[in-house]
Amino acid sequence: MNGAEALVRTALAGGVEVCFANPGTTEMPLVAALDASDRMRAVLALFEGVCTGAADGYARIAGKPAMTLLHLGPGFANGIANLHNARRARSPIVNVVGDHATWHLSADAPLTSDIVSLARPVSGWIREVRAAAACGRDMAEAIGAAVAPPGQSATLIVPADCQWNDADGIATVPPATDPPLPADAAIKATADLLRAHGSRTLLFMGGQASLSRGLRAAARIAARIGCALMCETFPARVERGGAMPFVERLPYFPEQATAALGKFAAIALVGARAPVAFFGYPNLPSTLIPNGCAVTTLATPEEDAAGALEALAELLDAKTGASAAASARPPLPSGKLDATTIGAAIAALMPENAIAMDEAATTGLPFFGLSKGAPPHTYLALTGGAIGQGLPCATGAAVAAPDRKVIAFQADGSGMYTVQALWTQAREKLNVTNLICNNRRYRILQVELARAGITEPGPKARALTSLADPEINWTAMATGMGVPAVRVESAEELARELTRALREPGPNLIEMMI
Amino acid sequence: MNGAEALVRTALAGGVEVCFANPGTTEMPLVAALDASDRMRAVLALFEGVCTGAADGYARIAGKPAMTLLHLGPGFANGIANLHNARRARSPIVNVVGDHATWHLSADAPLTSDIVSLARPVSGWIREVRAAAACGRDMAEAIGAAVAPPGQSATLIVPADCQWNDADGIATVPPATDPPLPADAAIKATADLLRAHGSRTLLFMGGQASLSRGLRAAARIAARIGCALMCETFPARVERGGAMPFVERLPYFPEQATAALGKFAAIALVGARAPVAFFGYPNLPSTLIPNGCAVTTLATPEEDAAGALEALAELLDAKTGASAAASARPPLPSGKLDATTIGAAIAALMPENAIAMDEAATTGLPFFGLSKGAPPHTYLALTGGAIGQGLPCATGAAVAAPDRKVIAFQADGSGMYTVQALWTQAREKLNVTNLICNNRRYRILQVELARAGITEPGPKARALTSLADPEINWTAMATGMGVPAVRVESAEELARELTRALREPGPNLIEMMI
Repeated sequence: MNGAEALVRTALAGGVEVCFANPGTTEMPLVAALDASDRMRAVLALFEGVCTGAADGYARIAGKPAMTLLHLGPGFANGIANLHNARRARSPIVNVVGDHATWHLSADAPLTSDIVSLARPVSGWIREVRAAAACGRDMAEAIGAAVAPPGQSATLIVPADCQWNDADGIATVPPATDPPLPADAAIKATADLLRAHGSRTLLFMGGQASLSRGLRAAARIAARIGCALMCETFPARVERGGAMPFVERLPYFPEQATAALGKFAAIALVGARAPVAFFGYPNLPSTLIPNGCAVTTLATPEEDAAGALEALAELLDAKTGASAAASARPPLPSGKLDATTIGAAIAALMPENAIAMDEAATTGLPFFGLSKGAPPHTYLALTGGAIGQGLPCATGAAVAAPDRKVIAFQADGSGMYTVQALWTQAREKLNVTNLICNNRRYRILQVELARAGITEPGPKARALTSLADPEINWTAMATGMGVPAVRVESAEELARELTRALREPGPNLIEMMI
Repeated sequence: MNGAEALVRTALAGGVEVCFANPGTTEMPLVAALDASDRMRAVLALFEGVCTGAADGYARIAGKPAMTLLHLGPGFANGIANLHNARRARSPIVNVVGDHATWHLSADAPLTSDIVSLARPVSGWIREVRAAAACGRDMAEAIGAAVAPPGQSATLIVPADCQWNDADGIATVPPATDPPLPADAAIKATADLLRAHGSRTLLFMGGQASLSRGLRAAARIAARIGCALMCETFPARVERGGAMPFVERLPYFPEQATAALGKFAAIALVGARAPVAFFGYPNLPSTLIPNGCAVTTLATPEEDAAGALEALAELLDAKTGASAAASARPPLPSGKLDATTIGAAIAALMPENAIAMDEAATTGLPFFGLSKGAPPHTYLALTGGAIGQGLPCATGAAVAAPDRKVIAFQADGSGMYTVQALWTQAREKLNVTNLICNNRRYRILQVELARAGITEPGPKARALTSLADPEINWTAMATGMGVPAVRVESAEELARELTRALREPGPNLIEMMI
């Protein structure tokens, strides 16, 4: 058994069953090793940012890591932006990066670079394999590091000779540990805060708190105390609809976020850090929680937020959840396509157990509110602000959940960064309906220009925020990559085509002209 | 004058006239500052790898730096692969990367990351601006660092508040220094080597040695001594055709490279490092120069290789260049499309002063030899092995030379990494003819699998090297991004369409079905 086979078999033994790959010459033994087991699914992407974004989406839905297979420093570099998003999502991912043979590194061949320096900002754990014998053990440690609560990227750099030389065999991945419950004092302090401030208290939730188990406990607490529930502006994953309690989302701009938080006398952080402004603006603070608001931490992101909520509910004798407010879906919209009619159409039509990946930027804003009465579904957001995450993340989510329908609700500007994801969706026949918001502009930047006081932008500032010259034809691009696509110009057309698209197996794309 | 204006005006004063941009919120003052001068051309790209690859192509043709404008760590990360190529090309580039306001960094907002760690592997010079007052001076130093011989990327990280606060004004960029001539001893040693070994000597050339001035001197030396001329496998730029002497290219695979070099008793390195194998293979050495071959360095990449060749020619009393061998263009090919017929069609039809950017991978191999009788033209290669450089580099070359025709000779697999470059070509109406080699596979990886002993690859290894399912329709994708495109299936069709395409202004694309 060579190092590559030891690595792949260790991954399988450790529960890693999917490899999102864009390999090159230095990974050929690993490519061959993928064939040594039927169970490891190899998914090719035509750009590494698709691999890493898909691994993130897979982890958010499957709750366990996939591996990526990347080609030296530049291949890894192409995956960094989506690993940055995965870091903010705390998604477990194992990146396997090929490198030159150990004895070839000193030659400084053209593709040689400092992979560790590139990996550090997005990896919680990094190792360079030193010998083929260690491949199994190093992979086992990488998987263990990736799944250590709350989850992170582990990056294993594997020189070519360590892949092709003989290994010691498969290593055992230690069983994943559960995140620790917070100390009793934290739970008691939160209970005291809730009792003191009642309905003027907010549970600000992230991580496991916004999944089913955490939400059910939060609903009981809210029913008992009358407190409010809110999640981060860009949550990694929220379970919504059906019996799930409605969780508000923190607004994006700091003025609105501060106003939203200012309604509360006390805030308990549950699996989330204290919220900060996405960007710094002149004369606005970084922190969003108003002065005078009492803040306590029920559970850090590293702790068991769902367990903490259950313990808190028990301490508060909160045994019954309020039945979810009987929110209805919005009616099917009509008229012109805009953020509201698009959001309403999706909310009205999304099937039970859908996964909605939202990178729709400004066009996506109304959707979260409009969809609160939708059937049970999972909501995924762009966690780290590195645009180009939506199409890959939807791709990975569909790999993780072949029986669920994935809706990639996608801004056009952001979508262009990793448009190659469409090809992987076609190859793997994934059930993804891509909804492209073709507004022919970086709309958020036009807003930000105005916020920066540039109310009458010059021709270059206008050009740098416009995608109108030439207009991009997403229908043509998608078709070129094997994804059937149509263009719609009205809410009625969208409703008709979305109804059809959600019934069809495999990927499809609807280009929404706004 | 705020920091952003001081930075942009300093750039202009320092001769930087083009900005390849993909900005975000933290760069809004810089976007506004671009409008403060008519002379700074702002070129939008829809993915940062296009910005950095275009800056590389611009620098290779213009001989001076453009600036890139990138959005925080993830935006920079998307540009790393092509900055890696630019590093190997020794192209001067000034990367301007926006960052959070200085006082916002400690909030660890979602887009915060360690930009310096990302920048280090591809930047010869890095600075984080600490105050708006310093923006002009820091930009001046960045430009000075970028153009210091032989050229490199300089990365300037500019927090948002340093852009919007008041600056000290424009700073002066010190005049660029010329690279130093090598010591007389190096020139004399090379002369001795040439006299001793005559026609069994090779001048192995890189950098400025393969541009017009260096080549003319090399031709005189070759005429006097009978020595051979060879360039690196992947040169940043070679002037070819017309009166230029024919320069062989070092073969790619180490067995062939060693054999090619083994014909010589002595090698003089001229602006090039001693060649090494692109990848390490079992039982093959990293170094390609055979044992027993005498090696001397006429000029390092940091020294004045063209001046050194002129000094050497003078020392050897080599006053007359051989007239270039009267190579003819190949006849127009007929029959099926393959590497030879495609290379012949391009060589037969490329106009005088064309720029040929070659990222055609396996399909590109015969072109270099076939085009030696073509009219004067410039040849650019993928220098660092980070695929996805061709379309952006061609884009930047066309910005630098609006009166020349640029031919992007592009493999399909590599082209997909930065396919967004087509949109920028359309927006800027650049004279680029994109020739896509649609062979529906990572052909080089299929070769490398066989070289690694995997002669009967399993289904996953076959799938990971195939682009056939689904087939990519480049004509549809290009049209979707505003570039007129046709598909050709025979050499005759290619000749007809290429003749037409080279006459048309603006970008176009020919999809060659192999």
